[in-house]
Amino acid sequence: MEFSSKLIEKAVNEISNLPGIGKKTALRLVLHLLKQSESQSVNLANAISEMRLKVNFCDNCHNISDSDNCEICSNPRRDQGLICVVEDIRDVMAIEKTSSFNGLYHVLGGKISPLDGIGPDDINIDSLIEKVKNNEIREVIFALSTTMEGDTTNFYIFRKISKYNVLTSTIARGISIGDDLEYTDEVTLGRSITDRIPFENSLKN
Amino acid sequence: MEFSSKLIEKAVNEISNLPGIGKKTALRLVLHLLKQSESQSVNLANAISEMRLKVNFCDNCHNISDSDNCEICSNPRRDQGLICVVEDIRDVMAIEKTSSFNGLYHVLGGKISPLDGIGPDDINIDSLIEKVKNNEIREVIFALSTTMEGDTTNFYIFRKISKYNVLTSTIARGISIGDDLEYTDEVTLGRSITDRIPFENSLKN
Repeated sequence: MEFSSKLIEKAVNEISNLPGIGKKTALRLVLHLLKQSESQSVNLANAISEMRLKVNFCDNCHNISDSDNCEICSNPRRDQGLICVVEDIRDVMAIEKTSSFNGLYHVLGGKISPLDGIGPDDINIDSLIEKVKNNEIREVIFALSTTMEGDTTNFYIFRKISKYNVLTSTIARGISIGDDLEYTDEVTLGRSITDRIPFENSLKN
Repeated sequence: MEFSSKLIEKAVNEISNLPGIGKKTALRLVLHLLKQSESQSVNLANAISEMRLKVNFCDNCHNISDSDNCEICSNPRRDQGLICVVEDIRDVMAIEKTSSFNGLYHVLGGKISPLDGIGPDDINIDSLIEKVKNNEIREVIFALSTTMEGDTTNFYIFRKISKYNVLTSTIARGISIGDDLEYTDEVTLGRSITDRIPFENSLKN
């Protein structure tokens, strides 16, 4: 694309560096911003740079937080011995919304993915193992996605911590509440039969 | 959505103000930026605010330009008496890519759209009429989209300038080169028959 202005070209190039945004979409966004007040663009720019420069991560769980200890970790009413291992902050938000979990989180910040050049040292695994080693934790729940990378990460961590005195579990996979059996994929349906639970347990929820 | 950080919340809110970007996409973009170097976010932020604060419009055609006169208007080899009326800079870029037009442009910056509260005074119509009035222009080509708003805008401008000594034309509508007749919508096919051109003219291209 040829632009009549270097400023526009630069803005389009920077915006189209974002995932899922191409040059055409970036130009559409730029033209939108040009039609709005100057303050909107300035606010957007400030929010982006402030977010990146001033963001803090919780020392304990690596969740994004404005202080050194996030609200979840510093809440004394949460179970400090129960840790749910998740990939990123979005998973924390999703689980928090269910109100079904009263423990703490451990945010890995990614998954082991050799194809993308992400090894065990690139994500927050060591600090988790350290916590387990120090006997601070009763149970670790794996809640990564069931992709090749998620499974690899789960298994890597499991091997590292299984020698210590800690329970490990993984969130249940099965048919969604309200779904029809006939429309469920075979892998999920098969898993839901293998991993069946005692009937009386299902009555608790 | 509940965020564990006010900085993240603010960035997500500002980004999701952009058209076509919801809160979930905005959060995805924010998490992407957090994984990249700080300089990427700072460059993005600077490019956005500089673009908005320093952008210039060509005094003559209202195209976006880094100087007071855009490259197209200040090119002496272009036909100064031929003006193509377009909605925005994207249309200029599209037509320039064809290399089929050697005149100047007039960028309206929008279309008359009463439903959106955009009247004739909100877009760059007056300066076009002024140019026509001063006898600077031989022919005006309308190249707006064939929507209700585009047709309204075309007609409004046409009524304003038709009393002056100027030719008016509109870009041809018809079946795209290479398209099958049987898959073309009726309106376009009907228009291509009504607006048929002498066969020998089609041999020129």
